[in-house]
Amino acid sequence: MSGKYTVSYEVPYYECDVNATMKISSMIAIIIKVSEEQSDYLNRGSDFVHQFGVTWILTQYEVFLSRLPKVGETILVSTQATSYNKFFCYRNFWIETKEGEELVRVESIFALMNYTTRKISSVTEEIIAPFESEKITKIKRAPKIPALNQAESLPFRVRFYDIDSNHHVNNSVYFNWIIECLDYNFLTTYEPAYINIRFDKEVEYGNLIESQYEIISDDDRMKTLHAIKIGQTKYCEAEIDWKKR
Amino acid sequence: MSGKYTVSYEVPYYECDVNATMKISSMIAIIIKVSEEQSDYLNRGSDFVHQFGVTWILTQYEVFLSRLPKVGETILVSTQATSYNKFFCYRNFWIETKEGEELVRVESIFALMNYTTRKISSVTEEIIAPFESEKITKIKRAPKIPALNQAESLPFRVRFYDIDSNHHVNNSVYFNWIIECLDYNFLTTYEPAYINIRFDKEVEYGNLIESQYEIISDDDRMKTLHAIKIGQTKYCEAEIDWKKR
Repeated sequence: MSGKYTVSYEVPYYECDVNATMKISSMIAIIIKVSEEQSDYLNRGSDFVHQFGVTWILTQYEVFLSRLPKVGETILVSTQATSYNKFFCYRNFWIETKEGEELVRVESIFALMNYTTRKISSVTEEIIAPFESEKITKIKRAPKIPALNQAESLPFRVRFYDIDSNHHVNNSVYFNWIIECLDYNFLTTYEPAYINIRFDKEVEYGNLIESQYEIISDDDRMKTLHAIKIGQTKYCEAEIDWKKR
Repeated sequence: MSGKYTVSYEVPYYECDVNATMKISSMIAIIIKVSEEQSDYLNRGSDFVHQFGVTWILTQYEVFLSRLPKVGETILVSTQATSYNKFFCYRNFWIETKEGEELVRVESIFALMNYTTRKISSVTEEIIAPFESEKITKIKRAPKIPALNQAESLPFRVRFYDIDSNHHVNNSVYFNWIIECLDYNFLTTYEPAYINIRFDKEVEYGNLIESQYEIISDDDRMKTLHAIKIGQTKYCEAEIDWKKR
């Protein structure tokens, strides 16, 4: 497929939890790295983009999981910028076994933010052309995330080590706060089958955040809803459908 | 050098902090992985060791740093089991540039713990022979870590994601709790030059730990002392000498 970029990756033990499968936060960190590598490869890395006074922000992911990568497993991580419109870029990721079995598919929405105004900036040909993605007029949106009704919550401090070398709280870190709300029994019984997460605002070093959650279970399904808040302001929201391990 | 095992590693952005240098916790996680790889390579991996009812525990590190690895840098990570006596195994690690410049040297002390009694078990030829390390009678100890006088502290919950696929709180995680006590200004002004850390007991999932710290600064030096405690019980202690970045 034109414009698809793939790297091989061996899953290290420290990116896996007690289930010996990959932490969601580590999986997200890896796929972002692969998209940065593609951008560098196409000479559209962060230095190139920053000269226009803009930076990439990630607004939403949908993650479809058939199973999580296992400790020691060699996986193929691919990405492709599939399409874009005036303000949004749509990028897919795939995690596959060496034999080509799809384990995870991610559909993501990126946008360019102006450093000074902090507003979304329109996508320019200069930045997007080398990715060979399709120009579309339609604005695609992921499904709306249901609001929490009876939320419980855990507090977290945003740590120094939560900020990466790009000077941002990495999107992957939000999953540390989300997952930690669910207990040992839950997390060793269930694994995620579908994740829908939306990033509204970026938390900063030193912030004290509340990770709200609600577990919705009935005969047929196990679902959790999540919101990352500071005071009444929502920074991130997510829903996760779970299946038995 | 006989018995030395080396792997090449490219430092990813998400294992670096805002200084664009490697997090100490990530550096420790990597070196442990390399020693596990050597053990697997010599058919002395965890499955082999576990059949004798014992498991490796790491009791102490001394880390000597000339500089931290940088984001995107390809480093060579080497390890060698240098010597052992009746109860302790001494293992060194080195992190070097591709050109052979030594960035970090680590001297560590491992022991075998009996699963049932939780006591130190003597080192057997069967387990140690393939590493070609020297049998010694002397018991080497790292320098004693000074006690804290006027400690401040921050509380941390041991998180689900702090437990790795070996079902333990990874030694590297203690550095997350230690480093977080120092503030942004400190951590962007100084980098570690020497770390001496000792693990006394293992914390467990759900524990609420106190990360105690004390900053000792005078004209010539910047030193921090650390202790990880639950109640009055010390689980880990460390001292770090810092130098200007």
